[in-house]
Amino acid sequence: MEEKYKNILDGIDSPADLRQLPIEQLPDVCQALRQFIIEQVSVHPGHFASSLGAIEIIVALHYVYDTPDDRLVWDVGHQAYAHKILTGRREKFHTLRQLGGLSGFPSPKESEYDTFSTGHASNSISAALGMAVAKKLEGNKRKVVAVIGDASISGGMAFEGLNNASSHPNDLLILLNDNQMAIDQNVGALYHYLTRITTSQRYNLLRYKAYNALKRHGLISDSLRRALIRFTNSVKSLFSRRQNIFEGLDIRYFGPVNGHDVVSLVKTLRKIKDLGGPKMLHVCTIKGKGFKQAEEQATIWHAPGKFDPATGERIKENTEGLPSKFQDVFGKTLVELAEKNERIVGVTPAMPTGCSMTYMMERFPDRTFDVGIAEEHAVTFSGGLAKEGMLPFCNIYSTFMQRAIDQVVNDVSLQHLHVVFCLDRAGLVGSDGPTHHGVLDIPYFRAIPGMTVCSPIDEHWLRKLMVTAVDVADGPFMIRYPRGRGSIGGNDADGNPNWKNALEAVEIGRGYCLREGNGETAVLSFGPIGIEVAKAIDRVDRDVAHYDMVFCKPLDTELLAQVFNKYTRVITVEDGALAGGFGSAILEEANRQGYEGKIRCLGIPDEFITQGSLSELYRLCGIDASSIAKVLEEDSD
Amino acid sequence: MEEKYKNILDGIDSPADLRQLPIEQLPDVCQALRQFIIEQVSVHPGHFASSLGAIEIIVALHYVYDTPDDRLVWDVGHQAYAHKILTGRREKFHTLRQLGGLSGFPSPKESEYDTFSTGHASNSISAALGMAVAKKLEGNKRKVVAVIGDASISGGMAFEGLNNASSHPNDLLILLNDNQMAIDQNVGALYHYLTRITTSQRYNLLRYKAYNALKRHGLISDSLRRALIRFTNSVKSLFSRRQNIFEGLDIRYFGPVNGHDVVSLVKTLRKIKDLGGPKMLHVCTIKGKGFKQAEEQATIWHAPGKFDPATGERIKENTEGLPSKFQDVFGKTLVELAEKNERIVGVTPAMPTGCSMTYMMERFPDRTFDVGIAEEHAVTFSGGLAKEGMLPFCNIYSTFMQRAIDQVVNDVSLQHLHVVFCLDRAGLVGSDGPTHHGVLDIPYFRAIPGMTVCSPIDEHWLRKLMVTAVDVADGPFMIRYPRGRGSIGGNDADGNPNWKNALEAVEIGRGYCLREGNGETAVLSFGPIGIEVAKAIDRVDRDVAHYDMVFCKPLDTELLAQVFNKYTRVITVEDGALAGGFGSAILEEANRQGYEGKIRCLGIPDEFITQGSLSELYRLCGIDASSIAKVLEEDSD
Repeated sequence: MEEKYKNILDGIDSPADLRQLPIEQLPDVCQALRQFIIEQVSVHPGHFASSLGAIEIIVALHYVYDTPDDRLVWDVGHQAYAHKILTGRREKFHTLRQLGGLSGFPSPKESEYDTFSTGHASNSISAALGMAVAKKLEGNKRKVVAVIGDASISGGMAFEGLNNASSHPNDLLILLNDNQMAIDQNVGALYHYLTRITTSQRYNLLRYKAYNALKRHGLISDSLRRALIRFTNSVKSLFSRRQNIFEGLDIRYFGPVNGHDVVSLVKTLRKIKDLGGPKMLHVCTIKGKGFKQAEEQATIWHAPGKFDPATGERIKENTEGLPSKFQDVFGKTLVELAEKNERIVGVTPAMPTGCSMTYMMERFPDRTFDVGIAEEHAVTFSGGLAKEGMLPFCNIYSTFMQRAIDQVVNDVSLQHLHVVFCLDRAGLVGSDGPTHHGVLDIPYFRAIPGMTVCSPIDEHWLRKLMVTAVDVADGPFMIRYPRGRGSIGGNDADGNPNWKNALEAVEIGRGYCLREGNGETAVLSFGPIGIEVAKAIDRVDRDVAHYDMVFCKPLDTELLAQVFNKYTRVITVEDGALAGGFGSAILEEANRQGYEGKIRCLGIPDEFITQGSLSELYRLCGIDASSIAKVLEEDSD
Repeated sequence: MEEKYKNILDGIDSPADLRQLPIEQLPDVCQALRQFIIEQVSVHPGHFASSLGAIEIIVALHYVYDTPDDRLVWDVGHQAYAHKILTGRREKFHTLRQLGGLSGFPSPKESEYDTFSTGHASNSISAALGMAVAKKLEGNKRKVVAVIGDASISGGMAFEGLNNASSHPNDLLILLNDNQMAIDQNVGALYHYLTRITTSQRYNLLRYKAYNALKRHGLISDSLRRALIRFTNSVKSLFSRRQNIFEGLDIRYFGPVNGHDVVSLVKTLRKIKDLGGPKMLHVCTIKGKGFKQAEEQATIWHAPGKFDPATGERIKENTEGLPSKFQDVFGKTLVELAEKNERIVGVTPAMPTGCSMTYMMERFPDRTFDVGIAEEHAVTFSGGLAKEGMLPFCNIYSTFMQRAIDQVVNDVSLQHLHVVFCLDRAGLVGSDGPTHHGVLDIPYFRAIPGMTVCSPIDEHWLRKLMVTAVDVADGPFMIRYPRGRGSIGGNDADGNPNWKNALEAVEIGRGYCLREGNGETAVLSFGPIGIEVAKAIDRVDRDVAHYDMVFCKPLDTELLAQVFNKYTRVITVEDGALAGGFGSAILEEANRQGYEGKIRCLGIPDEFITQGSLSELYRLCGIDASSIAKVLEEDSD
């Protein structure tokens, strides 16, 4: 850290300490925070570019507002690292995203300054509005601020919040942190709209001055506020020839202002803080601000892994010989399939890089649709495409698919439309923690009539299931697979990756015996957790059978009949919630078939699972090879 | 039917027939349709006021567009009766909403003219956009039109669709049917915005004429379109001093126009039909148009039941002595609780009348929030209220709660916030059919850590559980109860309804034995379906035990231990999906406890259930008293 900034943070153990400083010192505090974040994140990887961009906003908010009594709500709170550092968590910051350490997102369990859990986008306005309305109801003058990015605000839920903001008495401030970026490039009309609005800065300045003049002369009252909004709208239209969507929704709009001038931000916030009614301050920031490489390539530096803070060189892990990521196999296989079948299109809500749909986007730009943060739309849009004969691969992370369950039910399954749902990041995801674990999709999808639910044990099977989804399926088809690497590494003699098996379909609803046993214990696994099962069986001194069921719905009832007939103990293993999950499906079928042996279900217990490395979390849940081996060694009665 | 209109519809068996008529005859066709709908719905109850309001729109669309090759998508399609009548279903119209009859909503299974299943609001833009983009991709010139109401368009999903409408090449027309009404009074800023926009009709007319003049002189090309939108925006702002949200989203806006002048609608549609790019036509209609009582009281006449078509007198069923509706008991009990506890607030997305939160709204207007069609916002807004110490009763129909599962998980349960989710219309709902059955909530909610899931067998228990939710619970608490009447009729000596028991809490997670058996068979039921179970047991000649589990989560494991210990056969009964549902939870616990008897699970099978009367559907699913009795009479081994 530059010498100059070295000791500045030492005296700031809470926002109250920050508020003791003279305003002139705030730029130095921001620089100190910036350097601290660069140093920390370079060795303890986390979200980087958005955290750098929000520093001045965070300092200004804690300086002006009386936190924690005033409430700050951070949308997709991975931008809020500076907030964590200023609120007594500097010393613990190196534990970020580790088991037992600080959460990567705001977490009310962790700090009273984290008012709301905000791991999924677009919920801050609704949550903050609830808090603001509650305060108004009890006559409490404390303030509530929602900080939302320009990508998050395109989610339908944010619109529902905006549409309701003026319906109930409240003094909410919505701070729009506009960096013109989602994780990937931002999309949608609202994004273009925000670009246009920022070009009318001159008018806004003028209007703001006029407003202050009126205020000084006592010409503005709360009852005049709405009339004033409309009047300034029309003046604004005259000058800027632009619309203002937010004022159309009766939310008073200020901005855009420079989000990296902390002193001026403080002054602006002080001026609008006590205005009654819902209001928006539009703040323009630069993602990655203050770290050249991140400013230039914000997508790569969204979560860059380890890097050299001096040179900006990213420290690449040595991945030589390691298996590919499921994501890569998905992305490349999709292109192979799309080359052979022109009906195939790709749909993803704001995650083309994360799910590797970028390959498809490059190869078939017209057949790939990144719809922005809009999971509900992504699913129903896929339904519409399918209705007209396209075959959409709709890729949504398992945890975010929770946003579109109703659309999967009504807009696809009920109509038996042929849409392939690819649930990336299914199962435990590691350091992103409880908001991001994708552990509920099995109970959610298997309850839907007409749905096929499957999961590949490895990369070969991911490809087989993708072909099956195209060639065999004729209705909704769901494939779940986890974040990270598969189990098939290396290349063949010709230099082709070993995961690249021939594209052959399989029979829907058929499971496979991977290993015969001696008639005592059979393990039924679903998905890549089967690799842990195989390791466990290798470790024990018993002749345990192993079946990869591949399909959770429809279940292979014939294969199960053989298993129930031969084995006295069945163990099910899944990387998903036990309540209503794969094991539960096996129990239902075992009961139907009148199985009289013992069944033991291993999977995610009925609690929210914390963050940590995958191996730590598997152990915690008892689904790592060692834990499974222990169960195998227990006596079966 | 008035003599004049009597035979007009006879010759119209498809839209092609309609298109043979001269334009001057269309007003008579509309009147004939109106009278037909009035006569039919007066004896075969269905959705009335919105169907009357949309007649001219429907006639104009089928007249101008080449259906079924051009595609019409109806948002919450209960407005589309005239569409059903014009598309070859006039003769069958009397079977509306009956078992084996016409669906009350558009249904692709029923007709190729019904392009998409649209029972839940706000999905039409996304679906139609998918269809329009697919057509553009394959170079097909056919048109796609989404018809959406002003209430539906306030749903977040509709906004996601609007935000994406200009992102991909397409020629979609969005027809906004603006009757200033949801089922209940419309709410939200967008609603007020639409009111304001309709006052600027003079300007729109002017602009439209100017546009046509430019077009006649060949001054408009597609490449000029966007520039033109912006230019006319600024002109418009000059004249109207109003914003246009839709043009802010790069959707070309036309209107508002009179939605009951069918000839002029046809002319307008012809003019804009072939314009490239996404566009919106804003059409103003009157809900209930042409039937005086419905025009005056649109909420009552949304779905009025039987009535006299001549006098407009509603034919009230004789409900003397019948039990109250669960809805009424909920609504009145909520007021009782709110009177004693000022932390209690009510939240509902656009269903205050349907769920009887109107009582609370009347008594405590400041503590009752109708947030419009916005389920996601409703849940997270409740989370925000709870965070600041309020105790929200968030009432959402079970089927619509599918829209907000992620919010229940992340914005309430993960944070252990004290929100009471009241899932009205849980289980089969009858004539509204598959889009409206609330049969997935048990698997969806019981998979969520920290959630309490319960259901009352009758009105007394609904009240007990509501008190328990206030006095005992301290985290998320879900109560599911069905549409319609309970089982406790009549009044006591003082004239108070018998359902009005003392407000006393129960222990969370405790089930009850309603009837002891002889050690052979025990039935475990969950919710009001227990009444059918009791009837079944009365009918059989065996000594069957009956337990009302009350809580599906947490389960009463001690009580279950007693049951498993004493009975050799257990039968579970639920009004919900079997896959992952209540019976599945019992199977999981039985397996944990090593139960060796037989278990049989009765509930909704793994298919989408059709419409019909409740008793017909219970029988279809095998959960009516007779079907249950049959199972009880089977030998247990």
